[in-house]
Amino acid sequence: MNGKKLWSGRFTADTNKIVERFTASVDVDQRLAIYDIAGSIAHARMLGKTSVLSDAESESIIAGLNTIREQIVSGDFKWSAQLEDVHMNIEARLTDLIGDNGKKLHTARSRNDQVATDMRLYVRDSVDVAIASILNVQQALIDLAEQEAETIMPGFTHMQSAQPVTFGHHLLAWNEMLQRDHARFSDARMRVNVSPLGSAALAGTSFPIDREMTASELSFDSVCENSLDAISDRDFVIEFCAAASLLMMHLSRMAEEMVLWSSEQFKFVDLGDAFCTGSSIMPQKKNPDVAELIRGKTGRVNGHLHALLMLMKGQPLSYNRDNQEDKQPVFDTADTVVDCLDVLAAMLPGITVNRENMRNAAIKGYATATDLADYLVRKNVPFREAHAIVGQVVRHAIDNGQLLSDVPIDVMQSYCEHIQTDVYDCLTLEGSVNARNHIGGTAPNQVLGAAKRARTRLNS
Amino acid sequence: MNGKKLWSGRFTADTNKIVERFTASVDVDQRLAIYDIAGSIAHARMLGKTSVLSDAESESIIAGLNTIREQIVSGDFKWSAQLEDVHMNIEARLTDLIGDNGKKLHTARSRNDQVATDMRLYVRDSVDVAIASILNVQQALIDLAEQEAETIMPGFTHMQSAQPVTFGHHLLAWNEMLQRDHARFSDARMRVNVSPLGSAALAGTSFPIDREMTASELSFDSVCENSLDAISDRDFVIEFCAAASLLMMHLSRMAEEMVLWSSEQFKFVDLGDAFCTGSSIMPQKKNPDVAELIRGKTGRVNGHLHALLMLMKGQPLSYNRDNQEDKQPVFDTADTVVDCLDVLAAMLPGITVNRENMRNAAIKGYATATDLADYLVRKNVPFREAHAIVGQVVRHAIDNGQLLSDVPIDVMQSYCEHIQTDVYDCLTLEGSVNARNHIGGTAPNQVLGAAKRARTRLNS
Amino acid sequence: MNGKKLWSGRFTADTNKIVERFTASVDVDQRLAIYDIAGSIAHARMLGKTSVLSDAESESIIAGLNTIREQIVSGDFKWSAQLEDVHMNIEARLTDLIGDNGKKLHTARSRNDQVATDMRLYVRDSVDVAIASILNVQQALIDLAEQEAETIMPGFTHMQSAQPVTFGHHLLAWNEMLQRDHARFSDARMRVNVSPLGSAALAGTSFPIDREMTASELSFDSVCENSLDAISDRDFVIEFCAAASLLMMHLSRMAEEMVLWSSEQFKFVDLGDAFCTGSSIMPQKKNPDVAELIRGKTGRVNGHLHALLMLMKGQPLSYNRDNQEDKQPVFDTADTVVDCLDVLAAMLPGITVNRENMRNAAIKGYATATDLADYLVRKNVPFREAHAIVGQVVRHAIDNGQLLSDVPIDVMQSYCEHIQTDVYDCLTLEGSVNARNHIGGTAPNQVLGAAKRARTRLNS
Amino acid sequence: MNGKKLWSGRFTADTNKIVERFTASVDVDQRLAIYDIAGSIAHARMLGKTSVLSDAESESIIAGLNTIREQIVSGDFKWSAQLEDVHMNIEARLTDLIGDNGKKLHTARSRNDQVATDMRLYVRDSVDVAIASILNVQQALIDLAEQEAETIMPGFTHMQSAQPVTFGHHLLAWNEMLQRDHARFSDARMRVNVSPLGSAALAGTSFPIDREMTASELSFDSVCENSLDAISDRDFVIEFCAAASLLMMHLSRMAEEMVLWSSEQFKFVDLGDAFCTGSSIMPQKKNPDVAELIRGKTGRVNGHLHALLMLMKGQPLSYNRDNQEDKQPVFDTADTVVDCLDVLAAMLPGITVNRENMRNAAIKGYATATDLADYLVRKNVPFREAHAIVGQVVRHAIDNGQLLSDVPIDVMQSYCEHIQTDVYDCLTLEGSVNARNHIGGTAPNQVLGAAKRARTRLNS
Repeated sequence: MNGKKLWSGRFTADTNKIVERFTASVDVDQRLAIYDIAGSIAHARMLGKTSVLSDAESESIIAGLNTIREQIVSGDFKWSAQLEDVHMNIEARLTDLIGDNGKKLHTARSRNDQVATDMRLYVRDSVDVAIASILNVQQALIDLAEQEAETIMPGFTHMQSAQPVTFGHHLLAWNEMLQRDHARFSDARMRVNVSPLGSAALAGTSFPIDREMTASELSFDSVCENSLDAISDRDFVIEFCAAASLLMMHLSRMAEEMVLWSSEQFKFVDLGDAFCTGSSIMPQKKNPDVAELIRGKTGRVNGHLHALLMLMKGQPLSYNRDNQEDKQPVFDTADTVVDCLDVLAAMLPGITVNRENMRNAAIKGYATATDLADYLVRKNVPFREAHAIVGQVVRHAIDNGQLLSDVPIDVMQSYCEHIQTDVYDCLTLEGSVNARNHIGGTAPNQVLGAAKRARTRLNS
Repeated sequence: MNGKKLWSGRFTADTNKIVERFTASVDVDQRLAIYDIAGSIAHARMLGKTSVLSDAESESIIAGLNTIREQIVSGDFKWSAQLEDVHMNIEARLTDLIGDNGKKLHTARSRNDQVATDMRLYVRDSVDVAIASILNVQQALIDLAEQEAETIMPGFTHMQSAQPVTFGHHLLAWNEMLQRDHARFSDARMRVNVSPLGSAALAGTSFPIDREMTASELSFDSVCENSLDAISDRDFVIEFCAAASLLMMHLSRMAEEMVLWSSEQFKFVDLGDAFCTGSSIMPQKKNPDVAELIRGKTGRVNGHLHALLMLMKGQPLSYNRDNQEDKQPVFDTADTVVDCLDVLAAMLPGITVNRENMRNAAIKGYATATDLADYLVRKNVPFREAHAIVGQVVRHAIDNGQLLSDVPIDVMQSYCEHIQTDVYDCLTLEGSVNARNHIGGTAPNQVLGAAKRARTRLNS
Repeated sequence: MNGKKLWSGRFTADTNKIVERFTASVDVDQRLAIYDIAGSIAHARMLGKTSVLSDAESESIIAGLNTIREQIVSGDFKWSAQLEDVHMNIEARLTDLIGDNGKKLHTARSRNDQVATDMRLYVRDSVDVAIASILNVQQALIDLAEQEAETIMPGFTHMQSAQPVTFGHHLLAWNEMLQRDHARFSDARMRVNVSPLGSAALAGTSFPIDREMTASELSFDSVCENSLDAISDRDFVIEFCAAASLLMMHLSRMAEEMVLWSSEQFKFVDLGDAFCTGSSIMPQKKNPDVAELIRGKTGRVNGHLHALLMLMKGQPLSYNRDNQEDKQPVFDTADTVVDCLDVLAAMLPGITVNRENMRNAAIKGYATATDLADYLVRKNVPFREAHAIVGQVVRHAIDNGQLLSDVPIDVMQSYCEHIQTDVYDCLTLEGSVNARNHIGGTAPNQVLGAAKRARTRLNS
Repeated sequence: MNGKKLWSGRFTADTNKIVERFTASVDVDQRLAIYDIAGSIAHARMLGKTSVLSDAESESIIAGLNTIREQIVSGDFKWSAQLEDVHMNIEARLTDLIGDNGKKLHTARSRNDQVATDMRLYVRDSVDVAIASILNVQQALIDLAEQEAETIMPGFTHMQSAQPVTFGHHLLAWNEMLQRDHARFSDARMRVNVSPLGSAALAGTSFPIDREMTASELSFDSVCENSLDAISDRDFVIEFCAAASLLMMHLSRMAEEMVLWSSEQFKFVDLGDAFCTGSSIMPQKKNPDVAELIRGKTGRVNGHLHALLMLMKGQPLSYNRDNQEDKQPVFDTADTVVDCLDVLAAMLPGITVNRENMRNAAIKGYATATDLADYLVRKNVPFREAHAIVGQVVRHAIDNGQLLSDVPIDVMQSYCEHIQTDVYDCLTLEGSVNARNHIGGTAPNQVLGAAKRARTRLNS
């Protein structure tokens, strides 16, 4: 190509070297190559079918593109920054390979609809990969939840022991969070999977194209209704990153808990030596680095969402060069969420649960105080009064260094005459969790039922 | 209530006054009052139905709550910051009104599931209102698009004249953006409309509640599967704000164009005196303030999204007081998007379109150069060569201060021998737009067809 | 004023009612009233001094403005949304009060330089208030640090016990964070405190104004160098919010630690009943709400920073109506940081430190393992080898449920022959902290020295 | 090293392969290598000086490190992901090179203070490079401003022609924005340039180190006051990114104006063929890609700021692995701002200013209406009345398709009897700009004075 820009007809001066470097995107967007070729093949096939090109021209182009794909996949393709971007690199190579027919590929399209097509194919794949990785984590969570359906731990609000829950119940809370992520990615996919091809530069083309044919070739569900919108729309990129930001927020919460739980103070779980690292100076350290890094990567993905929303703010239609900046954030987002999910899926099955520590923690925190209040309500004390009475009993227990179940019956009765010795049954951890026996409740049999339903949803 | 906190049983010191002010939320969350009462009525009715309360108790509570609602709606309700929040204010008033039965309302629930229920009801309403406002703007856009289906303007890429498009086509691009917003809010609604009621503090309750009944009373589609998740989940708030951020980004783009188009340099549209304001110092000014403010409010809504994602990052389960901070951002987001949409819906029908200025601008910008290249392709010149030839013709025209249609045929032919006099037909604006006659293209009859389809979608 | 807009000369239609509501800012910006009046008085005095107005006119205006200020301060001023903003409300009232002279106040200025002046005065005050509140917290931290200079707790990295530190040392780490915040606000103040007054609409004015005089009247350090920049610049607002975001990030870290430390698992501190709240359902709960809310408000302030940066992105010069949106974020930011700092300053002195729990935690976590490695280094074992040896000793201790100081000398020696019985001295907590006796180190006497230096900085 | 982790003493299982990949940072942080070596050399020299190591040991280490630096600079260094990070790679190589002495380098320090030192050195350099690049742009702006001190263009508010300004004045507004950026980076540098070295893991070290010596060797201004803070503090990274975000916001505004000004509608400037690119489909296009990309990169840098603030939110002290995520955002921020500034500095001198188009635009927009009002004020009409009168004159001119200077004197006088024929002098563009002759005003001689002062500041 002699370094001559493909668009240089009306220009009188060569591109400034700093500008060439500044505007080149091929380092980043070569990642789109296989999508670009898939799009070009669909386009060339359609041009043949609609007789814009002859069958021979169309076939020659398709053969050339297939060759280039092989070179790219095998790593034999030489990328040139001077040729600006992935599209120009491939088109220039095509003409090298097949001669003048290569110059006909760009008939009836533009880089604008071409890159929009590439990006949609990329994001569609990224959605599918993210969903698959979410499913793996969900699988691991459900397995662990079933195993720990009867394990009792303190349930926390405000980081204070609140009520006993089962560990299986807690794990299924995590699973619900991921279930919504799964659904959000699925919803986003519907808006991703629409074909912009044929929108050309911004207005459509004067050639008799068949947009439904290229859409179908590329497994798009439908075609974009408006060419101006099709080439300026990056909603699908942002929506992907918004779903990813919520997902990372969820992972950060799980990570936070794993960090806490593996601290000396909690000792609820052991994450396994294979999933921790040590210190360069403190020989005793075993750090939950994986969980910390997952938590840390939350900011990164959220930053990308923010970058994209700011990128698009106030842009007049239709395509502006600003949009070149949509790639790095979404590429890194897609990589990051899958890395985090995959390492989490690998780590979860190896977690050792310290059931005794969990149980002991649940005992210490006055976690069955609500059960005492509920007991009083069943004795016909209005809830608000029951709550106040139990507050005083707890105060007494704290002052005397006692567990609730250690408070003697006469002391109990001094606060409320309705209390009988059967009260101690409802103050046990098992009594407490088993009593919460409704859909969504923490009772072990509810957990097993919920796990079963969750598994069914996964497989549907 | 003597200012005694409802939860103060175990406390030995009164709340510090600074803390009382710092933690009070009633100034903000009283906005939830009608939802809180609706939730409480559903809860009370269920407690009656399941015999946790007697029918008389249940009915007394419901009657009391109905009275309180009337007082709130009529503005007669006195809110107290000392009673912390909307829930405590209403419960305290209930007990004032109906006596001890009021103290039984909180049986089998907690502020945690109560506020989650209130928030979901609020966000559900906000989704519905936002969608209705979107529809109004879409209606106005489709009306205007049909009216301007044949109006030709320059289509821009990089803010440079690219190809002629019809103004109706441009307006329908805006409509497509809103169509996706509409779909995103609808999708979000499915994840909003699930009932957390019955999750109690975090683990469910020991009373024999009927969660499906309260869900049904409140028109929820289903119940949350996991109590821990139900009370810690704020995804529905964030997803609402994410959809709103995308919507505002779209509105900012429309606003940007309206500002540009009403500038002296473009003069494409006149927004109407009733939708502009003047200057305190420059008497000649007529400013497109409404469009500017819409653009400006984009940051505000995006900031709220960011605030909420950061709020939730790294929070261990289940409820933490941090979450009180979810209200102001979502309230302001819901208000802002509806205000912006409504003022836009009011402004659009009053826009005066300066068709002549649009047409003149389209003529000046060499906007039919692509048509000349396409012409050459039809004469069997490979597209890349055609592009290069036209680039030289444009260069010639610029250097000679000519329009493309002014370049004499012999000059044309000096660049490419295949050019005949029929070339001038495809260089007209009408020739150019009419040629883009496929789905998504800018041809007037395509615009009318797209408008018709858009209208059908609106009404479905 | 009959509801006639002050700028309506060239308009033929009245402002649409929706628009009037949408664009009105007086609900928000009336908060600027005292700054607006101060700016107007300075302006009027200058107009008198430079003979643009007569002395009598100038004095009449100043007297009128003083009257209006009193009405506003006493709450007797009636704000009108129809008069749009704080500036128009005050100017209209001025004319009501003093007649035609009031119409001369706006000579040689514009709302553009007027609002820029108001905002700078407001932000300058906000900086000063924020710094004062920071100083209060620093004072409390230094007091507590001196008191706890010898209290030993585990120092954490990765939430794992790392090395013993003194609690005073930890508190002074917090103080350093605030010290940087203090410095950032001070630096920002220099860029805030520059006078835009006299820039008029955007280009300066044709009247012979004296900008230095108004700057001096308003205690500005200097005047803005460029009128276009002066009226479009909102850097000072953003820089304030950036400093506030860093500050809130710091407070979120302190809050996180207070939440952890007051959990059952840590029990390092008791925050005091007056600074905690209870639960509506769980009578035993005592929640660290204040710390949680501070942590939660971090997102809010960061969201405002983001909103402002997005607001200004891509705005062409000079003033655009978008900028009306700068107020709510900065007002809320200023309020939030001061509220958080003040409640923290009130809470810190009441914290009860559980020294024994801290000490016990430090003992359990193998926190002196580094001291053992350092011991070996002093016996001439290369650090990397020493590290590996100690790792094995720790492994042995864990496997046998021992503290490091419980490992018998012969076992120690089986890992490294250089170990002598003097090793046990450096394995004590006191030995460890006292050994870190250099500037920045955790030794109690270093902490006392650092506290003294910190106190000196505060008072300078 | 056999792939054995340096910290593996207490571990019983090898690191999981997925984890190894997930936690490795050497791909990213090898960029810190030269800073890491500089820090290590200072540390080794200090260990020699303080006799923690022998002089021979110290010198051997320093020689080894110098060799490694040469290998890295020349590209001969083989990085290993298995060795995790830049620090471990260099230390392992050092031991390969010089034997057991290499294992002594890590005496009295930790990766925690090591990486904090590296990052501060990196950010300090980045500040200096950013400031140098800002200065280049400022230089270009001042040159152009002096050249265009008398060029008249319309000054815009609300994108509407407001008052005539000189183009030089507008360029100096840009310069003021950069001047503040310059100042912010300088202020940030003071907080960057403090030495954390000697803080070791978190508590300081038991060796008799000399922190002032290493600080001085590395040209730090002082030492961090608190070891816990020193290793957990990333304020300096965030503050750098905050300054960069404000800078990018400024560049986005300049870019927006360049895009507008080079549109067909404005035609105020020609950016030069060497700084524009063409279209793959539309042969006539000449796109202001550089300006668009600068504008687009604003989101990217802001996203990084957000990522970092979110990263640090709620982290308990001291070091957590999350912080590994601080590198990519700041590296990319530093690269991006310098790239944008440098391409802008290259582009500015080549801009062709279309003075005639600017002047014509200024004439058309009733830009001297304020001058007419000021004229009336000088005739003793109160400003508010003058404003109203001029509004009516403008209305008349618009309705009759006239410029203000075309309105006959008798028509003028029908609106206000005080108008005389001298009014036409102040309605000229030159009359208007020359009248704004005070500091900060747009008069050409003020612009020249401001340019001179700006140049003096640059060189100081």
